[in-house]
Amino acid sequence: MIIDCHGHYTTAPKALEAWRNRQIAGLKDPAVAPKASELAIGDDALRESIETNQLAKMKERGSDLTIFSPRASFMAHHIGDFRTSATWAAICNELCHRVSRLFPDNFIGAAMLPQSPGVDPKTCIPELEKCVNEYGFIAINLNPDPSGGHWKEPPLSDRHWYPIYEKMVEYDIPAMIHVSTSCNPCFHTTGAHYLNADTTAFMQCLTADLFRDFPTLKFVIPHGGGAVPYHWGRFRGLAQELGKPLLRDHLLNNIYFDTCVYHQPGIDLLTRVIPVDNVLFASEMIGAVRGIDPETGFHYDDTRRYIEAAGLSAEERHKIYEGNARRVYPRLDAALRAKGR
Amino acid sequence: MIIDCHGHYTTAPKALEAWRNRQIAGLKDPAVAPKASELAIGDDALRESIETNQLAKMKERGSDLTIFSPRASFMAHHIGDFRTSATWAAICNELCHRVSRLFPDNFIGAAMLPQSPGVDPKTCIPELEKCVNEYGFIAINLNPDPSGGHWKEPPLSDRHWYPIYEKMVEYDIPAMIHVSTSCNPCFHTTGAHYLNADTTAFMQCLTADLFRDFPTLKFVIPHGGGAVPYHWGRFRGLAQELGKPLLRDHLLNNIYFDTCVYHQPGIDLLTRVIPVDNVLFASEMIGAVRGIDPETGFHYDDTRRYIEAAGLSAEERHKIYEGNARRVYPRLDAALRAKGR
Repeated sequence: MIIDCHGHYTTAPKALEAWRNRQIAGLKDPAVAPKASELAIGDDALRESIETNQLAKMKERGSDLTIFSPRASFMAHHIGDFRTSATWAAICNELCHRVSRLFPDNFIGAAMLPQSPGVDPKTCIPELEKCVNEYGFIAINLNPDPSGGHWKEPPLSDRHWYPIYEKMVEYDIPAMIHVSTSCNPCFHTTGAHYLNADTTAFMQCLTADLFRDFPTLKFVIPHGGGAVPYHWGRFRGLAQELGKPLLRDHLLNNIYFDTCVYHQPGIDLLTRVIPVDNVLFASEMIGAVRGIDPETGFHYDDTRRYIEAAGLSAEERHKIYEGNARRVYPRLDAALRAKGR
Repeated sequence: MIIDCHGHYTTAPKALEAWRNRQIAGLKDPAVAPKASELAIGDDALRESIETNQLAKMKERGSDLTIFSPRASFMAHHIGDFRTSATWAAICNELCHRVSRLFPDNFIGAAMLPQSPGVDPKTCIPELEKCVNEYGFIAINLNPDPSGGHWKEPPLSDRHWYPIYEKMVEYDIPAMIHVSTSCNPCFHTTGAHYLNADTTAFMQCLTADLFRDFPTLKFVIPHGGGAVPYHWGRFRGLAQELGKPLLRDHLLNNIYFDTCVYHQPGIDLLTRVIPVDNVLFASEMIGAVRGIDPETGFHYDDTRRYIEAAGLSAEERHKIYEGNARRVYPRLDAALRAKGR
């Protein structure tokens, strides 16, 4: 089985975006603010949005199951206040839940949190609990910068975030550390902000001892870990200067990298540098880079091709495709076993 | 000849830091503010700080000439106002100039600019002119984020920066795009902020058409280009989605990457992905990562070893070591030719 640990609902019916635009307009003019109940998307529309997009590509490329969460760039936690984010997160998570019910063999949910800049993260717990207990979600996405490119929250190692971590440990769910859209004109969202956040999150963990407080906490750093594997020597050297243990002991019991790296040399480096137990298959399809690479004739985000060509053994590929995901996402493993998979 | 295009005066005599601390204290209490003339560092102290450090390592590792600029993390453009930065930049540049006079065969200067957040970059021109015309400097360091991790200036493609670019083109000098210390607790200076800035700067150029306005403008992106070469497929795909030309045509006549990547797999990727004409030898020695890699027994920042082992031809290595630098830094080439080198 091939599990793609990084998929967002980027293809939701247009009614979702229209509702969000009305919600945003309502922040200035409450008279136009929509109720959540005014969003009506039928199962047929959901089915079509998936069957003609993600599911078609999964079949074409040979992946089986996608860990599916709301569109990352649309989380936009910087917009409005906690209530804005709470309503929006609830709507987006419910849609992913419905997709996972319509296609139970192919999608399983990961929750967007109703984060809001400057608001205590513990306010996110009720939505998280609902998504795990009622929707059967098996992970969360945690945004280390709900300000959207202004980086005003404390580092991930700060006690500020501990309420989320305590719940993650209790539920045995990992967090993908994933920012949303950048409203800082310096940072292009998918070309700079996403990759910078990956590097930043890793370094926040490196300088701290977070995993001493939470030995079973698990973070998935997406987009192949940002700049981290390419600069693995730099990070090993910085850890050494800071008197930290070897990265393998200091961070690699808790941090995993996905394979959203869109060319062969990048995947070759990732799998050469990072222990295979810490690499999770992912494509972030359909996402930031949708085109066909003229150098290969295949889609940039068809990452399975790179894994197949990376010179790995069958056992290593199995870990990246399935084994590691079952270990990092225990509730996914349990859900699969319950179905005899 | 081996030219290291990325060296900072990280080993300046302690009197420099003491003076700076007094300058900073003087921002709150003008009574303790020092005059520039109160800093006295003799030639012997300068000589010793170089001979026992950078020059010793250059001889040991076999590099010949370092493009030498003030310590990047100490630029700290966010401190004080323009006058603060102007005095500090003048002092730091003069020290690098004196080093280049004491060791004319081994060091040539690149200027720190007296940037200050929110201040028009054209205020930097007099210092730049002095460094080129009086000191014989052959490049500048340009900080895209003088706020120190808050990213409040416009992107590098904005007309805000054009006065600097016009002078660079007039003088035919490149800029290394290099941030300084981070005062944002989210970003570790050398583990996150530096790499993020490299990625950010590249993406700012990718989304714009800056080099249409300045076809001969040249940027050196340090630290191996941040996350860029590792994600080259992502950047190629993003350029494609944005309707930009191929990166080779869009950016690689103007952008160069240095080799400050501190392990063999990173250098292997860099030289596999980026055309050899766009790679410049550098080590940033003595800098962020000073230790010995237990996996190799050699210093992390002894980057020449990685280049030697990267499977390049003699001609390719010559370009990376010398040929490209002579092309990217025409005033360096002229200075070398004037000495028959």
